[in-house]
Amino acid sequence: MKIAVDAMGGDHAPREIVRGAAEAAREFDQEIILAGEQGQIIAELGELTDPRITIVHAPEAIAMGEHPAVAVRRKKNSSIVRAVQLVKEGTAGAVVSAGSTGAAMAAALLGLGRIRGIDRPAIAGILPSRRGGTVLLDVGANVDCKPQHLLQFAIMGSLYAEKILGIPEPRIGLLNIGEEETKGNELTLATHPLLKRSGLNFVGNVEGRDIFQGPVDVVVCDGFVGNIVLKAGEGMAMALMHMVKEEVTKSWLAKMGTAMTIPALKDFRRRLDYAEYGGAPLLGVNGVVIICHGSSTARAIKNAVRRARESLENRLVEAIHSNIKAGDGGEAGCADA
Amino acid sequence: MKIAVDAMGGDHAPREIVRGAAEAAREFDQEIILAGEQGQIIAELGELTDPRITIVHAPEAIAMGEHPAVAVRRKKNSSIVRAVQLVKEGTAGAVVSAGSTGAAMAAALLGLGRIRGIDRPAIAGILPSRRGGTVLLDVGANVDCKPQHLLQFAIMGSLYAEKILGIPEPRIGLLNIGEEETKGNELTLATHPLLKRSGLNFVGNVEGRDIFQGPVDVVVCDGFVGNIVLKAGEGMAMALMHMVKEEVTKSWLAKMGTAMTIPALKDFRRRLDYAEYGGAPLLGVNGVVIICHGSSTARAIKNAVRRARESLENRLVEAIHSNIKAGDGGEAGCADA
Repeated sequence: MKIAVDAMGGDHAPREIVRGAAEAAREFDQEIILAGEQGQIIAELGELTDPRITIVHAPEAIAMGEHPAVAVRRKKNSSIVRAVQLVKEGTAGAVVSAGSTGAAMAAALLGLGRIRGIDRPAIAGILPSRRGGTVLLDVGANVDCKPQHLLQFAIMGSLYAEKILGIPEPRIGLLNIGEEETKGNELTLATHPLLKRSGLNFVGNVEGRDIFQGPVDVVVCDGFVGNIVLKAGEGMAMALMHMVKEEVTKSWLAKMGTAMTIPALKDFRRRLDYAEYGGAPLLGVNGVVIICHGSSTARAIKNAVRRARESLENRLVEAIHSNIKAGDGGEAGCADA
Repeated sequence: MKIAVDAMGGDHAPREIVRGAAEAAREFDQEIILAGEQGQIIAELGELTDPRITIVHAPEAIAMGEHPAVAVRRKKNSSIVRAVQLVKEGTAGAVVSAGSTGAAMAAALLGLGRIRGIDRPAIAGILPSRRGGTVLLDVGANVDCKPQHLLQFAIMGSLYAEKILGIPEPRIGLLNIGEEETKGNELTLATHPLLKRSGLNFVGNVEGRDIFQGPVDVVVCDGFVGNIVLKAGEGMAMALMHMVKEEVTKSWLAKMGTAMTIPALKDFRRRLDYAEYGGAPLLGVNGVVIICHGSSTARAIKNAVRRARESLENRLVEAIHSNIKAGDGGEAGCADA
């Protein structure tokens, strides 16, 4: 399956996007369609020109400040709308974009629609933990959620952990302020019983510290909380790096110490930045959509293309489709809250 | 003013509590009343016996699993209820407790009541940031909040930063998923205009990463989000320490490096643990109440007593009282949401 890449989205577009796409084409022997301003793409490709890369001319751009849904409806020839269109018409199997997250979501929702039984697609971040990685969702697609939305996030997160990260029977936790069933806000108190009878491997409530400790594989929360946790983690890693640097400017020995630990902190921070780390899947739309950070480099784009490939190979969308419909969880389970 | 210390609350009670109280009495020349089982306290005091320390016999204990409000109502002779009682009757000016947070809150609410104009008292955490510290509130007293509650948190947080941390005109931020006024969930969208016309030095929305970066002095959020951010930060510091240790077990040079940076990480983690770091004030009740972590050591208790002293000296409760009542913010401002 071809993969469509939004060549104009991102702080370093089209240069880094085009380079990342070219690297992915070569490294994975992957057919790629670059959607964007043809002249600029050709110029950037230069010596990287590859028979596996084709271009779809989409000269319009959506700026970060524009209202996503309005911009997506108006600018039919924007790179993200055209990239999504390629998936809709079956020319490509997946979209990768480092442009405005809102625009990518709006384009995907309008162009591909939701999987039947999913009320709210969610963005899944993969956060570093002591045991490898924890899938946290939603990290920003939905600010005000209902219990059935969190149940759907749990089903999608479980399938993602199983199909893409290769974890059998992923353990699911509900992000909360205490482990007891009686703890929580209105949303988590109402969600807990839904998860309990969902048929998922639900282990109960988990607390903030568990995200990075790894007692569960998937942590479910609303997009407001998820987004704040993700960004707080990023900010903390930055503050720590600063502190460690200040701490150890005193002796040559200390400097050697910094040289050892700063890379570990930098790596941690980069892994927190879900998009740098292979992009974040938008789960629940009728197609594979990988959202990358605005500051994505060629390497990030290449990793996102790999993530898109894996999602296609492991038939993630189909798995969500059949798991949401099947069984007494599924549509009935989602509707009964 | 005497300070009442709950001698029986905490994982290391009464030993560490009694020792911390004795250290505080000596170091700050502070009169302290220890509330708890007299025999045990006398045994722990031993050579630390000090004329500045008196004991109020309160033999009942409230366990972590008990329902706070029920336990507080039933156990009139529990150490936390008696400690609060001492403040109510004017014998002491402040309470310090490392027992169940829920029980301390319930005892304070029932015994001291709320400051007129405050609907929901809040727990304020002081988180480490690149610029020193950021006051984050609420970090767990209130899970489901209304806009006027967040406005009240902002007023109390601002006064705390000014009176106790010595920051003139503290900058206030609303924790959100984007800086734009139009971003947020129902709660933050409704809170933003209230803060804007509050007369506080409100700088607008801040994101998760700003908590540790320090562009503002006070960050306001509901207790569900605050608690999760706090614990996520703690878990992340622990995971980072683990990673750094693993990273650098390869050479003697690397081991020296770890020796340099692990203390910095440990310090960061301890500072995240709001209670270790001088305790967390419960703001909005009619008296000074400092809540400590269950695992508090003598040093933590001593620091909490210092924090209680500062709150008394700087007349924090009186300042909240007059600022909530005064001006068109105050009660009117709180009621109009």
